[in-house]
Amino acid sequence: MKLNERGLLIVISGPSGVGKSSVRKALFDMPNHDLAYSVSMTTRLPRTSEQEGIDYYFVSEEVFEDKIKNGEFLEWANFVGHYYGTPRDKVEEMLDEGKQVVLEIEVDGALQVRRQMKDAVFIFLVPPAKEALINRLKSRGTESEKELQERIDKAESEYLLAYKYDYIVVNDEVNNAADRIMAIIRAEHARTERTIHKYIELMEGEDSEE
Amino acid sequence: MKLNERGLLIVISGPSGVGKSSVRKALFDMPNHDLAYSVSMTTRLPRTSEQEGIDYYFVSEEVFEDKIKNGEFLEWANFVGHYYGTPRDKVEEMLDEGKQVVLEIEVDGALQVRRQMKDAVFIFLVPPAKEALINRLKSRGTESEKELQERIDKAESEYLLAYKYDYIVVNDEVNNAADRIMAIIRAEHARTERTIHKYIELMEGEDSEE
Repeated sequence: MKLNERGLLIVISGPSGVGKSSVRKALFDMPNHDLAYSVSMTTRLPRTSEQEGIDYYFVSEEVFEDKIKNGEFLEWANFVGHYYGTPRDKVEEMLDEGKQVVLEIEVDGALQVRRQMKDAVFIFLVPPAKEALINRLKSRGTESEKELQERIDKAESEYLLAYKYDYIVVNDEVNNAADRIMAIIRAEHARTERTIHKYIELMEGEDSEE
Repeated sequence: MKLNERGLLIVISGPSGVGKSSVRKALFDMPNHDLAYSVSMTTRLPRTSEQEGIDYYFVSEEVFEDKIKNGEFLEWANFVGHYYGTPRDKVEEMLDEGKQVVLEIEVDGALQVRRQMKDAVFIFLVPPAKEALINRLKSRGTESEKELQERIDKAESEYLLAYKYDYIVVNDEVNNAADRIMAIIRAEHARTERTIHKYIELMEGEDSEE
């Protein structure tokens, strides 16, 4: 029996190269979960394999910029000329349905969400050692020395932002990290500030009139 | 990999009749736990089956009162002429060993611990409905109408204190409640305030000097 019936917004972030998307996938592969993934909106063109509303919501620049003005994004960014953002209305809808909505986003986006969603749970994924992070960035290959150094510098500046999050989860092994996140979701549902109203209601229900 | 190596002090409390001790037993029956139970100190005489240091630490009134004066208890109370208390040194010792120390205590004792151990995790166990609480108190039998009414009145005043706790856990079924408490313990270990120092240390370790 859950005293808190509304879903939780779970923001999973962390420095570049920590393995956010692998952990998110492991989370969604777990049995019996009630997690929902928020589909992002973008102005870039769909690739042939991509489907509207599943991979992204594809919109024009004009539409996107209007939505920015109207405060319709929980977070947004512009990468190499294309906008990407998390539409607020879809997230709120899923939360109202009692789903746990997972955002897997960059540190900058997470801090934007923080300012708007006071009730969300912020998880900072970290490597078991700094070396692991750098090796991971290197192993992606394909990048020039300059690009690699930029990524390392970005990770260097991001890892210090852990203090802005509610939880720090070590990604020593993706399934362990996913397990820890599941425990956090369960625990957060029981936190007094989320349950006290429903609990008092329950205790002051019909059978308390004597 | 745990960033927080110190154990947690877990205080399980709740209104009379909610089933605190059944939940605590279910918790200790779980596989692979690293929970430790704090042995209380008392001035009452041992029953024939009771062993020193296992069921209680048995001491004289003089010794107990000295320990009160010296602030050696995390909480203490006097029930029908006998003292009962939780010795602080044993608890600290187990926490230093990295164990999760569970105290299953009355609401009044829990609030005493709250004042001394800012870092402890306070869990308020609640019935799924008020009726369940009253039925449970009644089913204990053996008590006079007057005693039963006193217990109900006590539970009535205690259930409102939930807001002083970190978590509210519904005892709809003992194993569910124990599972929720385990998730809380795991999540609390990942909380930023418990992990940030070790994490920064890790990230600024030897391999960060370039």
